[in-house]
Amino acid sequence: MQVETARIAPVQPDPDKLERARLRLAAELGPEAFRQNQTGLAEFRDPFEGPGATRHQPSFVVQPGSVSEVQAAVRIAAEAGVHIWTSSMGRNFGYGGSAPAVNGGVVLNLRRMNRVLDIDVPNACVRIEPGVTFQQLYDELQAQDAPLMMSVPDLGWGSMTGNALEHGYGYNVMGDHGSAVCGLEVVLADGQLVRTGQGAITGSPLWSCHRRGFGPSIDELFKQSNLGIVTQLGVWLMPRPEMFATGTIQCEGDEDIVPLLEMLRGLLLDGVLQGIPMIVSNPASHGGGDEGRGGFTADKLRQVLRPGRWNVRIGLYGHAAMVAARRKILEQRVGAIPGAVLELREYPGDATREMVEPRDLIAAGIPNMVLQDRLKGVFGDTLGHMDFSPVLPATGEAALRAEAAVRDKLQQYGLIGPFGLLLTGRSMVSASMVLFDASDAAHVGAAKQAVSELYDTAASWGCTAYRAHVSLVDQVAAKQDFNDHALASVYARLKDALDPAGLLSPGNHGIWPGGGMARN
Amino acid sequence: MQVETARIAPVQPDPDKLERARLRLAAELGPEAFRQNQTGLAEFRDPFEGPGATRHQPSFVVQPGSVSEVQAAVRIAAEAGVHIWTSSMGRNFGYGGSAPAVNGGVVLNLRRMNRVLDIDVPNACVRIEPGVTFQQLYDELQAQDAPLMMSVPDLGWGSMTGNALEHGYGYNVMGDHGSAVCGLEVVLADGQLVRTGQGAITGSPLWSCHRRGFGPSIDELFKQSNLGIVTQLGVWLMPRPEMFATGTIQCEGDEDIVPLLEMLRGLLLDGVLQGIPMIVSNPASHGGGDEGRGGFTADKLRQVLRPGRWNVRIGLYGHAAMVAARRKILEQRVGAIPGAVLELREYPGDATREMVEPRDLIAAGIPNMVLQDRLKGVFGDTLGHMDFSPVLPATGEAALRAEAAVRDKLQQYGLIGPFGLLLTGRSMVSASMVLFDASDAAHVGAAKQAVSELYDTAASWGCTAYRAHVSLVDQVAAKQDFNDHALASVYARLKDALDPAGLLSPGNHGIWPGGGMARN
Repeated sequence: MQVETARIAPVQPDPDKLERARLRLAAELGPEAFRQNQTGLAEFRDPFEGPGATRHQPSFVVQPGSVSEVQAAVRIAAEAGVHIWTSSMGRNFGYGGSAPAVNGGVVLNLRRMNRVLDIDVPNACVRIEPGVTFQQLYDELQAQDAPLMMSVPDLGWGSMTGNALEHGYGYNVMGDHGSAVCGLEVVLADGQLVRTGQGAITGSPLWSCHRRGFGPSIDELFKQSNLGIVTQLGVWLMPRPEMFATGTIQCEGDEDIVPLLEMLRGLLLDGVLQGIPMIVSNPASHGGGDEGRGGFTADKLRQVLRPGRWNVRIGLYGHAAMVAARRKILEQRVGAIPGAVLELREYPGDATREMVEPRDLIAAGIPNMVLQDRLKGVFGDTLGHMDFSPVLPATGEAALRAEAAVRDKLQQYGLIGPFGLLLTGRSMVSASMVLFDASDAAHVGAAKQAVSELYDTAASWGCTAYRAHVSLVDQVAAKQDFNDHALASVYARLKDALDPAGLLSPGNHGIWPGGGMARN
Repeated sequence: MQVETARIAPVQPDPDKLERARLRLAAELGPEAFRQNQTGLAEFRDPFEGPGATRHQPSFVVQPGSVSEVQAAVRIAAEAGVHIWTSSMGRNFGYGGSAPAVNGGVVLNLRRMNRVLDIDVPNACVRIEPGVTFQQLYDELQAQDAPLMMSVPDLGWGSMTGNALEHGYGYNVMGDHGSAVCGLEVVLADGQLVRTGQGAITGSPLWSCHRRGFGPSIDELFKQSNLGIVTQLGVWLMPRPEMFATGTIQCEGDEDIVPLLEMLRGLLLDGVLQGIPMIVSNPASHGGGDEGRGGFTADKLRQVLRPGRWNVRIGLYGHAAMVAARRKILEQRVGAIPGAVLELREYPGDATREMVEPRDLIAAGIPNMVLQDRLKGVFGDTLGHMDFSPVLPATGEAALRAEAAVRDKLQQYGLIGPFGLLLTGRSMVSASMVLFDASDAAHVGAAKQAVSELYDTAASWGCTAYRAHVSLVDQVAAKQDFNDHALASVYARLKDALDPAGLLSPGNHGIWPGGGMARN
């Protein structure tokens, strides 16, 4: 199948084109693909865009139910001259949900493609469609009593595929979700169906088991990009451990983060600690939230933070003897940091939701909504957040510098937000949420401005975002400036090679058709 | 810098073009870049091609000393209309060394670019140029007393870069060398210099520490491919462990491989075992070697094999308490396989070459030439080998099936070779060497024919090579046949996007310019 390759301008398509596309999609894909439109587009906008937003507006949403319907949608959109913006569930709320970079994009949402295609217990991996949520896979594993443990992010309602393709993180052993992917099925812009890795061999028994095929692996090209539509992927899980221990390390001094991070990084690289320790700070001064803005105050923020100046959540997994050895080494090391307190709770590996304290569900790999419930309980249902999430060196100095920058910037704009760090090993990812009242346009605008300016600050450290809100992607991508933005020019060449019409998600992660930079 | 993009036909260039290229390269790069030519081309041919070989013949070798010389070489070759075949050290002897797919290719060999650019102890990583060998980095780490442990392949004389870019394997914790790469510098076919990952940010502190940047990672595109010339890369090592234990598990029954692999796979996925266990078989019948062929007999083969029907080499690393826990679990599991014998030797993590038994050097991460010395000691200096190395399911059934296929095929051609397996976790890679007398053209031809036929057999299992001899790459690549070879068509699109002239290593891993398949 080959579709027309007339270039689709990366600007808002005219209403006639959109209507033509909508009618043809309805005729070919049927009413099921348009059921969501009846309840309105709200769910596919940026959930925190605020009143009166005019950018990143989708035109309509179409939900194909199969690979052949995805192929049909691609063909129809190309022929009609409108662009597609792909989302899996669209739950990445801090980054814009399903909102397209370019107004008028047709949201191709993959929620209906939600089959768990394979659960391979001996190899601890699964094969899923993009609509499968963390919660859904967990339920399926429980129903089959499959002795596997998942890694889950803070909220369990999102698509595993969407999260992995965005380089998302969870927290336990397989917490680098992008790296847990093994073997994709992808629909290209011209409708061609490609299987990557071992999946390129018809009848391969190893599609979800071995990462590379013969020749270069192209899996990474379809993460944080707009080069194809992923319709299936393999994910590596961990075998259910005999037991696990989770809890916190708490320190009270500002500077304790220096020895703390040095210890944690060393133990991660040594293989004593596993997964991705999550560090939250709780400083004396918390930015500039004031009562004038719907009660977004530092006092309220403190209600949702864990205790301690620095509070690290960790997990130890495995056979009881291994966990005991890990614990003993950890206790010795924590003991060497004056004032540091280690607290661990132990669970059997097959602990169910009912057996696990809510604060330990993440470490247990059990999907949940605890964080959102807590935040909304304090800040109300109109709570919105935008995330400042640069990649940083895994040092206390980098943590203190970033924390100070966030605090000062939030102070400047009268904002608040928790400052967090995900320790990924040789690096860490700041996970700072800037909180606001999404029903207040000025509050939304202030948050966006603050995060944008923080990325300029991060650039002065040689750092940029691991992931960014759709409205900031061009700014963030532009920080990759080595040799006159050589990497961006490679992205443009790849885009033009695989999607010469510029059909798929123009502007996603700052990648535009036609070799250009931002033009929205 | 932009070079001409006139298409260079992927056939042997005419002598005038080659001479023009050679003269211009000599003029611009100077005599140092041509020193190796004075000792002849032998070292840059397929070392085991045998007498009278006519294919995969390089024209001459040029050795740039810097990135700018690589860029100059690319420009000159493009202008002269000759293609370049890149090699790092060229020590991948079982796969063809530096021999190009197309006769007359100019070998661009990177041995002179051999700087260790950075050793980052806290983050357990290094940044190196492509000419750095395993041995050289080891010596450098020793000289600086850097507490890091390497993963090394069987022979320590090769380029770390070349090995990693070929998806090569070592055996200890960071044994998946392709996955240990973090951040490349690449010269593209038009001379453009690109830094990938965090290196795309000027002044990034994280180039060797964090794998991905913002947007898709392109690092994998430059492995097993011909899309650019890698001039620098980051490599993750492990912190030097407090201690390690290494040794073997030995079983005597043919069918013992079934519970053995099940146990090993489970312990690897559980995190009890680390690295890449190496399994060697020693069956009653060893293929068909006979005295008529330079003494390549099964009796001689037995002299170099480890004892036992199945013999697994393993390693346990870390803090003493962790190693003890690993060992205890392993002992219990091995005890559950009747007749299986575990033997382990313990070393301090900083054990030097002098302290480690030769058979344990690999597990110690100390580069060595033990395997070659042993093989040549038995089979003589004209020993050659060609490797059959498919990716297989990590099961005993797959092992027995592959072993039988290799034995039968070698029997048919009067050949011998050890049958080995690298257990990579959810999959395994067969590492079977077919041995021959490289001074005997008929013996060479028989080996090549046998390996080629074995890949046809592997395809019937849905499996193909993880890596292949240059003369077999088209055959192997063609096994990736899903949806009318859709993956190959993506490769062709990427090749034409990044190297429209078809300048770089045409035919490498079956990727040809112009969107075609094999045409040599």
